[in-house]
Amino acid sequence: MSLFDKYAPLQSRVDMMMKIGKDALGVQFDDILSATKGRVGNREILLAGTNNYLGLTFDEDCMAAAKDAVTRHGTGTTGSRVANGSYHEHIDLENALAEHLGMPSCVVFTTGYQTNLAAIAGLAGDKDIIFMDADAHACIIDGTRLTGASTIRFRHNSPEDLDKRLRRQGEIEGGNALVVIEGMYSMFGDIAPVDEFVDVTHRHGGYLYIDEAHSYGVFGPTGCGIAEEQGVLDKIDFISGTFSKSLASVGGFCASKHPEFEITRKVMRPYMFTASATPSNICAARAAVEKVKTGAHLRQNLKDRAAQLHAGLAAMDYDLCAEPSPVIAVRRPNEAVAAMEWNALIESGVYVNLAVPPGTPQSSSLLRISLSAAHTEEDINQIIKAFGDLKTNQASMMQSMMTKMQAAE
Amino acid sequence: MSLFDKYAPLQSRVDMMMKIGKDALGVQFDDILSATKGRVGNREILLAGTNNYLGLTFDEDCMAAAKDAVTRHGTGTTGSRVANGSYHEHIDLENALAEHLGMPSCVVFTTGYQTNLAAIAGLAGDKDIIFMDADAHACIIDGTRLTGASTIRFRHNSPEDLDKRLRRQGEIEGGNALVVIEGMYSMFGDIAPVDEFVDVTHRHGGYLYIDEAHSYGVFGPTGCGIAEEQGVLDKIDFISGTFSKSLASVGGFCASKHPEFEITRKVMRPYMFTASATPSNICAARAAVEKVKTGAHLRQNLKDRAAQLHAGLAAMDYDLCAEPSPVIAVRRPNEAVAAMEWNALIESGVYVNLAVPPGTPQSSSLLRISLSAAHTEEDINQIIKAFGDLKTNQASMMQSMMTKMQAAE
Repeated sequence: MSLFDKYAPLQSRVDMMMKIGKDALGVQFDDILSATKGRVGNREILLAGTNNYLGLTFDEDCMAAAKDAVTRHGTGTTGSRVANGSYHEHIDLENALAEHLGMPSCVVFTTGYQTNLAAIAGLAGDKDIIFMDADAHACIIDGTRLTGASTIRFRHNSPEDLDKRLRRQGEIEGGNALVVIEGMYSMFGDIAPVDEFVDVTHRHGGYLYIDEAHSYGVFGPTGCGIAEEQGVLDKIDFISGTFSKSLASVGGFCASKHPEFEITRKVMRPYMFTASATPSNICAARAAVEKVKTGAHLRQNLKDRAAQLHAGLAAMDYDLCAEPSPVIAVRRPNEAVAAMEWNALIESGVYVNLAVPPGTPQSSSLLRISLSAAHTEEDINQIIKAFGDLKTNQASMMQSMMTKMQAAE
Repeated sequence: MSLFDKYAPLQSRVDMMMKIGKDALGVQFDDILSATKGRVGNREILLAGTNNYLGLTFDEDCMAAAKDAVTRHGTGTTGSRVANGSYHEHIDLENALAEHLGMPSCVVFTTGYQTNLAAIAGLAGDKDIIFMDADAHACIIDGTRLTGASTIRFRHNSPEDLDKRLRRQGEIEGGNALVVIEGMYSMFGDIAPVDEFVDVTHRHGGYLYIDEAHSYGVFGPTGCGIAEEQGVLDKIDFISGTFSKSLASVGGFCASKHPEFEITRKVMRPYMFTASATPSNICAARAAVEKVKTGAHLRQNLKDRAAQLHAGLAAMDYDLCAEPSPVIAVRRPNEAVAAMEWNALIESGVYVNLAVPPGTPQSSSLLRISLSAAHTEEDINQIIKAFGDLKTNQASMMQSMMTKMQAAE
């Protein structure tokens, strides 16, 4: 037998998708024209499935910073921070983020994925217990697999359930509780009651770790995220984020109000054993941090567009997974229907994400829309119209899908 | 007790290092002047501790490609290849690497660390067994922790020991053997007998995975690495590499002679759940691939410099860990002496790596030198002289270290 035989069921699922249309999980853009426009073949596409929340990827200052970094310090560092040293850009970005978040310690990482992987595995040792939200992102789950700590899941966004589980656990012999939540969840766009999680966690003597990957830049008066929005930023033990959403680059950070966090630089394997981020990525993110701090107008437009889209879709009786936020997930009855509609949307010039299990909560099949501050009111109208056409054309689409699938058999 | 109490022993070890001098694991460069020169404070430093093997980080074409990518497609992609689509640059780089390696399938990743993490965890399922070299890099080990596959280690660079263990294992019920080795090992710079590993692995019906992170670009007539150098590239099942050494960027690739490898794009979590590499990083690596293919002169200079340095250090009776290669590791008696000498070297203007357990084989304390095609004969003479001075000044350095450590107590 072959090493690949185990993936035969997955291959069948992919084959089914391909009968319906394009491979939604392998989309290839032929050109990217702006933060909100791309091209596939000859067709211009409205991008409503990126995480370009502030639309900064084409910001003049961010682009200039990235290019200037290449000119000054080259295309790469060719080594890890620990083994091969830091460039001053890494330190400068850490200082800027620490200052923005009002925390004494901040470590930057090469990707957002590696950020949670590193920090969670670095903070939790064999005797600690990680309490993790049931809808935790893959990189949080993978982080727990790199440590000897045991893991307990609590009900999604439920401080009550966490409270019950912490109480049931009682005193942790020789260790601590590390509670891991996210600010805004990436698939449904729903928001954690961080203030309540702070209370529950600290009442039991635990440490609270919040991943603001999808909320840094987007929420809070100065863009620090949901913890800032809810007025509890100064009570958070560890806050992580990514450079690949609002900050328009690649990388991530973890900041802490505990200065002792610095020692974990010599423990975190996905920090120690990886090349440090390139000067261009670091400097693009550094420029974007300034935009975040002064980006109240961007956040306002993003909020307005989210409200507009949410109302438009709700008016058509679409089943939306959460209140308005920059991520609006439309629940579909199953994977085949979702894939069919995804194809119809991109044919009509609107790119959203097809999100299917195992990457989704409650094994949902979703059409996931993520908005950008760079979207205009007209862009949102175009999305609403495209979803309206789905409703109008549903019968003929179903007919066509059945024919395609039968023909391919 | 605090979450950080468990790191008290490590903190003591760091405190000891700081009494001896600078924090060798937290070096900060104030400026980077070229592929081989940096600045710390007012002092110009010869960089002999990067992995900039071909010296391409300041190559005009690579820099131009990185900057042009920013201009055309912005500073980031803000999403994963699977959830948010690929830019044509990702596909183009995959095609270029596949063609260079003569393999039908190639996947690029956002970091080298995530490459091995993703591919190893993606290839090996619960019923497979991973046979891994005893000196495997951290990211290979971490990859095995993200799968349910069991893991068996064999003696470093020993096809005989692998043979014995595969024979002892016998038939693997419902699964396969995945053998994981590296081309050149990063700490000692020693080379695997890949040709023999091919024979042993295939005789037992297993699959061979080789990580050429430190050898791609450096070995082989066209720079494909050790497998190409030993004439067995076409027999390798999976070959991985990084963009953060010879390719002067950040990212990684895994290529396979099995076209079925493509299905793992929908399985590999560190591929699916991470933002795709920025256009600048991808385009810098793409330009560097062309330099690798035509870089025989760079490889020749690198080889000559390695021979020069190896001979110079051997003539002073330094204990070198392997035959000449771009990584030359000097074994020191213990961590304190290695740290003291590392400080003396950087004071004299030569930056090498201090490598100490747990990152080193055989729990060695090493002064690790990595060379670049951009190093000149004079650069190497400077390194040799600095190591000569260590010998000359050893007695007074020891005296000074003892005084410092006592004074600090």
